Amino acid sequence: MASETDNASPHFDRLALIGVGLIGSSIARAARRADLATTIVGCARTAKTRDKAMELGIVDAMYENPAEAVAGADLVIVCSHLGSYATVGKAIASSLMPGAIVSDVGSVKGCVARDLGPHIPDGVHLVPGHPVSGSEKSGPEAGFAELFDGRWWILTPGEEADTQAVQRLTAFVQALGSRVEIMAASRHDLVLAITSHLPHLIAYNIVNTADDMETVTQGEVVKYSAGGFRDFTRIAASDPEFWRDVFLNNRDAVLETLGRFTEDLLALQRAIRWGQGDNLLRQFSQARDIRQRIIQAGQDTDAPDFGRRPGQPVKPD
Amino acid sequence: MASETDNASPHFDRLALIGVGLIGSSIARAARRADLATTIVGCARTAKTRDKAMELGIVDAMYENPAEAVAGADLVIVCSHLGSYATVGKAIASSLMPGAIVSDVGSVKGCVARDLGPHIPDGVHLVPGHPVSGSEKSGPEAGFAELFDGRWWILTPGEEADTQAVQRLTAFVQALGSRVEIMAASRHDLVLAITSHLPHLIAYNIVNTADDMETVTQGEVVKYSAGGFRDFTRIAASDPEFWRDVFLNNRDAVLETLGRFTEDLLALQRAIRWGQGDNLLRQFSQARDIRQRIIQAGQDTDAPDFGRRPGQPVKPD
Repeated sequence: MASETDNASPHFDRLALIGVGLIGSSIARAARRADLATTIVGCARTAKTRDKAMELGIVDAMYENPAEAVAGADLVIVCSHLGSYATVGKAIASSLMPGAIVSDVGSVKGCVARDLGPHIPDGVHLVPGHPVSGSEKSGPEAGFAELFDGRWWILTPGEEADTQAVQRLTAFVQALGSRVEIMAASRHDLVLAITSHLPHLIAYNIVNTADDMETVTQGEVVKYSAGGFRDFTRIAASDPEFWRDVFLNNRDAVLETLGRFTEDLLALQRAIRWGQGDNLLRQFSQARDIRQRIIQAGQDTDAPDFGRRPGQPVKPD
Repeated sequence: MASETDNASPHFDRLALIGVGLIGSSIARAARRADLATTIVGCARTAKTRDKAMELGIVDAMYENPAEAVAGADLVIVCSHLGSYATVGKAIASSLMPGAIVSDVGSVKGCVARDLGPHIPDGVHLVPGHPVSGSEKSGPEAGFAELFDGRWWILTPGEEADTQAVQRLTAFVQALGSRVEIMAASRHDLVLAITSHLPHLIAYNIVNTADDMETVTQGEVVKYSAGGFRDFTRIAASDPEFWRDVFLNNRDAVLETLGRFTEDLLALQRAIRWGQGDNLLRQFSQARDIRQRIIQAGQDTDAPDFGRRPGQPVKPD
């Protein structure tokens, strides 16, 4: 990657962020940290979010109208939910500056060409992207400059994309702290279906199953959650609208991986029903190895319990 | 609970721990911290574990033979895998001191009366227990004194248990840092099936599904695990033998909760297939609330990403 980007500058004159939630506001912070833009502006629908972003000092200006935000911007990053892309595209189309790069941070990439693509004028470069990092927290105040450090940022420029635009965007996201991978949108959507979308769906499902079990009270579920359940609740606390849009837009890949998951689960269920201890042991032993490799790759902490502080203060019931 | 235990001393002369892995060694450490036993002895099958426990200084003596460990002990806690209970019971039966309390820390409680019960002589008090806390790490070196602080420790003494024995054990585990709840073994096994056993089964399953997807490489699963998948790998890294024994011994409750989980998952799958955004949004929104209550109850941290340190050093590929 380095040789490709040697001549590409990561610095932009005006960076416009459409949406300043967790990801948008983290980009603003990380861009400031590395001095990657002369001016950083944002766009948000609600006055509350606009005020919050200004108060946090992470942008130079906030706009309600996306067209005003992108005017004069040489880098536009759409950081709003996938469901808003068609509307955003329509709103900014006529205000995009020739030569500008338009990217996004959505968790599904196949739909970007469909929803945003038709609104991008000739001479403006669409290079979809996805930082594979996040947090269960939402909103401008949840962002932080280190969010992307050491994480992967996938770009799906497509075969006809402008090489120089891809190089400049690559240099930019590397300067934000990320490592860059370039792949086809369809491959991204399949890989993320298993590493991100399915885990979130499973987490939502088990939390709701627990919540619905009328033979076990909700109070009991909360009380004894340290037995394993609480790990699932972190990602199930993620933004519901964001995830609705992911599943609606990556349907085929999610259904495919979900089918495999269910088959495997039924096999485990059968092993439990028939008391097949060796079968269970073999399957459980396999799973241990992959965590070790995730830790070695720097994608998670090796601290027990994710480094949760033992003996943290406990409030009375 | 306080009134019941006012007159019960949490202090024992000789505490014998059958097994000094994560839980056994944490009990030893927490008992030392609060000065709950004059002498603490342990028992382990392998010389390596016995040497490790002595080296860590968490016990006064280690034995290979469970009978020698329990001789003269007024509190015996079985901390070995559920599958070993019948063997342990047989081994210690004739060496148990009259008036001694025998407890355990197993994650299933219905099987304790079946496997350990027949070996407990008259005048010795069996009070099964389960500290609802743990870590994916195993072995004597993984334990720590704060493991039980603020967590629940469930006792399932049964209706015919000796009241004073229950009171003394209650005082002991409270002094270890835990909060105590008393319930029937069958209820424990149902509650833990949803809050602990099912989450572990699901975590093992999704990790194996990901590992088996030949259309996605293992390297990709590792690389992009920060998108959610890595959260599941923590509990899937738990001791495989321990979990095999849990599923073999809590079959009925696990199959019941697993059936409900699968039904709910199929409903979500259908909503995705038919593009029912409102349905998805409603289900995802429900799940957010329960995490808030878990945090309020002091059973998890509110720090984003479980408090994983952002920007942790990343090793090269």
